[in-house]
Amino acid sequence: MDEGSDLLALIRALYPLTRSITGDGVRTTLQRLTDIVPMEIHEVPTGTKVLDWEIPREWNIRDAYIRNESGEKIVDFRNSNLHVMSYSTPVHETLTRDQLLTHLHSDPEKPEWIPYRTSYYSEDWGFCVSDRQLQQIPAGNYEVFIDSTLETGNLTYGEVIIPGRTDEQCIFYTHTCHPSLCNDNLSGIAVCAYLAKWLQGRDNHFTYHVIFAPGTVGSITWLAQNQETLSSVRHGLVLALLGDGGPLHYKQTRTGNAEIDRIVRAYLSVEQRDSEVSAFSPWGYDERQFGSPGFALPIGRLTRSAEEGYAEYHTSADNLELVSSTALAAALSAAQDIVEILDSNRRYRNLAPHGEPQLGRRGIYRDTGGSASPELQRALLWVLSLSDGDHDMVEIYKRSALHYETLLQAAEILTGAGLLEQID
Amino acid sequence: MDEGSDLLALIRALYPLTRSITGDGVRTTLQRLTDIVPMEIHEVPTGTKVLDWEIPREWNIRDAYIRNESGEKIVDFRNSNLHVMSYSTPVHETLTRDQLLTHLHSDPEKPEWIPYRTSYYSEDWGFCVSDRQLQQIPAGNYEVFIDSTLETGNLTYGEVIIPGRTDEQCIFYTHTCHPSLCNDNLSGIAVCAYLAKWLQGRDNHFTYHVIFAPGTVGSITWLAQNQETLSSVRHGLVLALLGDGGPLHYKQTRTGNAEIDRIVRAYLSVEQRDSEVSAFSPWGYDERQFGSPGFALPIGRLTRSAEEGYAEYHTSADNLELVSSTALAAALSAAQDIVEILDSNRRYRNLAPHGEPQLGRRGIYRDTGGSASPELQRALLWVLSLSDGDHDMVEIYKRSALHYETLLQAAEILTGAGLLEQID
Amino acid sequence: MDEGSDLLALIRALYPLTRSITGDGVRTTLQRLTDIVPMEIHEVPTGTKVLDWEIPREWNIRDAYIRNESGEKIVDFRNSNLHVMSYSTPVHETLTRDQLLTHLHSDPEKPEWIPYRTSYYSEDWGFCVSDRQLQQIPAGNYEVFIDSTLETGNLTYGEVIIPGRTDEQCIFYTHTCHPSLCNDNLSGIAVCAYLAKWLQGRDNHFTYHVIFAPGTVGSITWLAQNQETLSSVRHGLVLALLGDGGPLHYKQTRTGNAEIDRIVRAYLSVEQRDSEVSAFSPWGYDERQFGSPGFALPIGRLTRSAEEGYAEYHTSADNLELVSSTALAAALSAAQDIVEILDSNRRYRNLAPHGEPQLGRRGIYRDTGGSASPELQRALLWVLSLSDGDHDMVEIYKRSALHYETLLQAAEILTGAGLLEQID
Repeated sequence: MDEGSDLLALIRALYPLTRSITGDGVRTTLQRLTDIVPMEIHEVPTGTKVLDWEIPREWNIRDAYIRNESGEKIVDFRNSNLHVMSYSTPVHETLTRDQLLTHLHSDPEKPEWIPYRTSYYSEDWGFCVSDRQLQQIPAGNYEVFIDSTLETGNLTYGEVIIPGRTDEQCIFYTHTCHPSLCNDNLSGIAVCAYLAKWLQGRDNHFTYHVIFAPGTVGSITWLAQNQETLSSVRHGLVLALLGDGGPLHYKQTRTGNAEIDRIVRAYLSVEQRDSEVSAFSPWGYDERQFGSPGFALPIGRLTRSAEEGYAEYHTSADNLELVSSTALAAALSAAQDIVEILDSNRRYRNLAPHGEPQLGRRGIYRDTGGSASPELQRALLWVLSLSDGDHDMVEIYKRSALHYETLLQAAEILTGAGLLEQID
Repeated sequence: MDEGSDLLALIRALYPLTRSITGDGVRTTLQRLTDIVPMEIHEVPTGTKVLDWEIPREWNIRDAYIRNESGEKIVDFRNSNLHVMSYSTPVHETLTRDQLLTHLHSDPEKPEWIPYRTSYYSEDWGFCVSDRQLQQIPAGNYEVFIDSTLETGNLTYGEVIIPGRTDEQCIFYTHTCHPSLCNDNLSGIAVCAYLAKWLQGRDNHFTYHVIFAPGTVGSITWLAQNQETLSSVRHGLVLALLGDGGPLHYKQTRTGNAEIDRIVRAYLSVEQRDSEVSAFSPWGYDERQFGSPGFALPIGRLTRSAEEGYAEYHTSADNLELVSSTALAAALSAAQDIVEILDSNRRYRNLAPHGEPQLGRRGIYRDTGGSASPELQRALLWVLSLSDGDHDMVEIYKRSALHYETLLQAAEILTGAGLLEQID
Repeated sequence: MDEGSDLLALIRALYPLTRSITGDGVRTTLQRLTDIVPMEIHEVPTGTKVLDWEIPREWNIRDAYIRNESGEKIVDFRNSNLHVMSYSTPVHETLTRDQLLTHLHSDPEKPEWIPYRTSYYSEDWGFCVSDRQLQQIPAGNYEVFIDSTLETGNLTYGEVIIPGRTDEQCIFYTHTCHPSLCNDNLSGIAVCAYLAKWLQGRDNHFTYHVIFAPGTVGSITWLAQNQETLSSVRHGLVLALLGDGGPLHYKQTRTGNAEIDRIVRAYLSVEQRDSEVSAFSPWGYDERQFGSPGFALPIGRLTRSAEEGYAEYHTSADNLELVSSTALAAALSAAQDIVEILDSNRRYRNLAPHGEPQLGRRGIYRDTGGSASPELQRALLWVLSLSDGDHDMVEIYKRSALHYETLLQAAEILTGAGLLEQID
């Protein structure tokens, strides 16, 4: 559970920061992540064309409040950065209650919680409050103040590149644009940071890219800037919403039959019995962009409760209490397990394919070196049986439902005994 | 429900007529349908070769009864045309009870109802009575009288052809050979008549054929007479048994993977949750002929309760009480919905396929023209995502489970915005 | 049930013999089978190379016991041949209790039963006892005596070859290496013997091989000696464990899509509703060898309770009480039914494929020769409908779920009427 504590501590440290799709909140967030894993931080100027989009102006905010006639701050940005609609333009006016109400957002279905709202692409300002508070605002005049700027600047994103033995790439992506929301998105940020650190300490086949960028425009920016090397992307996962109490949920790639789909489905079915798998759909997180028809990259998505799948989604209740060190550590561990599989998935050829080779005689079956566990015995037979050139280790994993590491061990033993050779 | 009333009124008007596979009952039925929709009425002479068959002699009947020794008519054709086995040869004799019983048909499992029987292809005569009545016939002599003729004549069928923008054809077919039975077959006749009328008021891509003909020999006749143009048949449905209280039931084409199969399966799964789908089988109605191996046309079948799937099937209880205006109107509406889909199903190509195009900027996503409904927003994303040249609108419909008309609207908006083009 | 009595009587006669992978127990067993069906008995010398294996020395045993200090035999081979671990080397020593215990095998989870153990490929000796007995062995010295020999000799197997109209082969295989165990393996031996006898009395399309050989090394030996003709193997089944009370269980071939897989799945789904089907796996019985990647023969496996699927498996409780004449007869009957299907499976071509041919006119539908049963009527239509060159009789069987023999009868009637011709 050490790892869980680290993950939770990171979330706790990042929780107060006012992240948005641009601005100092993201910049500071990425800076803090470099304590865990060094990364390249990219600044992409406002106005840059990225695919069909354009980098927007940079938004920053210092303070905001609503004050009643008695001078009391009835809504204060310093209590919760969710109180201000993200990308609100600056304002300083006095309004009647009715005028004020046209700028207040609440969710009557969740009356105790502040909703999270944004207005990235149309200029506007607004405050978000619990519906309970909104219902009790008395008549009168109100001073509204938002000390924000919306100016030419940059979109900021971070990328950790861990070179492997080949230039073929695996992508992990998490969005960074949400302010004080823990499951969506701090859990993804924390898991990706520690996943990147772990990948750095590993001898990898693939070159791994772990990307921390805002939702939608962030992945569009990364895609625009990496178009020339996308053809070497072999696998990928969007990681998000990994800290709550829900089971792991895999959303498949566009086609549903990529190798990453086979890998994660097999992994979940063998190791995570209560997990869920769903088909691709063109909404959700950044898998939408990776899976758009022009790119159609083999990138799935791993979450716990899917978006809109938990009551606290996009409200002030997506807070530090919603996420647990256990859930975070288990999610990181699952991501690592998936890497172990995809990084080692190969096809082998059985070099003694006519009948079973006599393993006993070679001392690798039962009686030598202590004795092979029953699971290893089965793994030896499965690997021999399906290593006919058609089946990769993931297929053997899926069919045998044995632990992947046992199958890898079996492949190694058989290779050492001259009974197996790797063919790709 | 206006349409339901019209459908039911038509059934009520046609109920008393004595239809068979030939004869004036069918002729009068088709004549009445021309009040709703003009149609070509074909008369095919007795003896004409049609595929492996031959047009039989024409059967007509004017009266029939069984009279007891007191001169009472104990069975009277004027009470129910089901009392006479269809295609009964003329007879006028006096018989003992035992002799009479060899010509009486009843169904002991449904003792209150008169069964429906035919003897089209072997010369015979008979009466049908409820088993309750049959069990009570006392000893004595009986006068049997059937005033029928079986003579050289014609087989009569009707066809409405509604030309479309192409010569490619869609076929709707209903059988017309049953006498006073409401669900089987008047419901199909009524739905087809009003479907044909509705098609005439529509701008259609396909050329539609709506055919009213007797079971088996009728479809065989139509196939024989249209062999040269069958290669342009794209879709079709046999419509029958649509007025009872059962859910909609789709019987797939011979292959189960025709476009009409994908269309109706998607439609039923999205819009008719309690519906049923079954595989092709070589019995039932005229789908047997269309799906025979030499033709293998993409023609499925839509019913409510399938044949033999309801207790009243082929008995006097398949009467005006069994069918409802609600069920009839909903069946017609389903047929129309299916036409809307098959007539407009196309593939499109996303012209900005790299990432999502920024819909907001183009004013078609959320903020312009009032605002797109959440369903339309999803429809826009689904159409963009799957319009990669491989998926047609029906596939998008099936995967998204959104309303088809919303998807069509999305395709139109996107085409108007230059983001989509039709590719077939 | 006569057949069941014969099967059970055979098992009763063979039960006392001490079978192993070599030796006189198997030799005597095969000799007794020749009373039922003549077979070729092969003796393969120790040291012969067979694929990756080598024929082991021949093991024979005459007597064995453990005697306590009072001279009482506390374990006696003459009471149960399971008391001696198969392939035990000779021994005659006096041991303390603790020394003795290192050579005693029991199963604490099944304390009343003697477990069945072997040590074919590493030299050792041992006794097997119930755990209840083992727990009560008092301190003291014990005389252990095993009068066995492990010497150059032969591996013995039997093969019945029943020539058919073609050289294409069907293989039935059962293992013969277990001593006094009834379900595993005497039930398979008995069913195969009577199946071979029945095949001899039949006019067969295929050439049938019914093989009685030890597990693993037996099938490896047969494969090694028949490599040149394996390309003509069309179908096969390993038959074993057929006498207990479990439902029939089919384990598919390596690919799961061989014709034998389609045949047995269809047969079980139509005729044996409580049966089970499982995927191939590389352990179990000799299907492992037939399905190894170098051979990949289309050979499945039919059992009742699969290996390890019943509590008495490989214990003294797999005795005469576990198997019943009813279960044995039903298993033999199922194997015969499967032969009837695979030996006659063909594709036909409908010679009047445009619409349904008018069967009534030809006198084969309803009115002639008495009348076709409703099942035969349906069979006629199914065979006509699917005989388009793509579907074989097994596919028609699966889709129609009619009895296979009715479909065969329909094909024969239609062929006689000139409506059908066989195309392969």
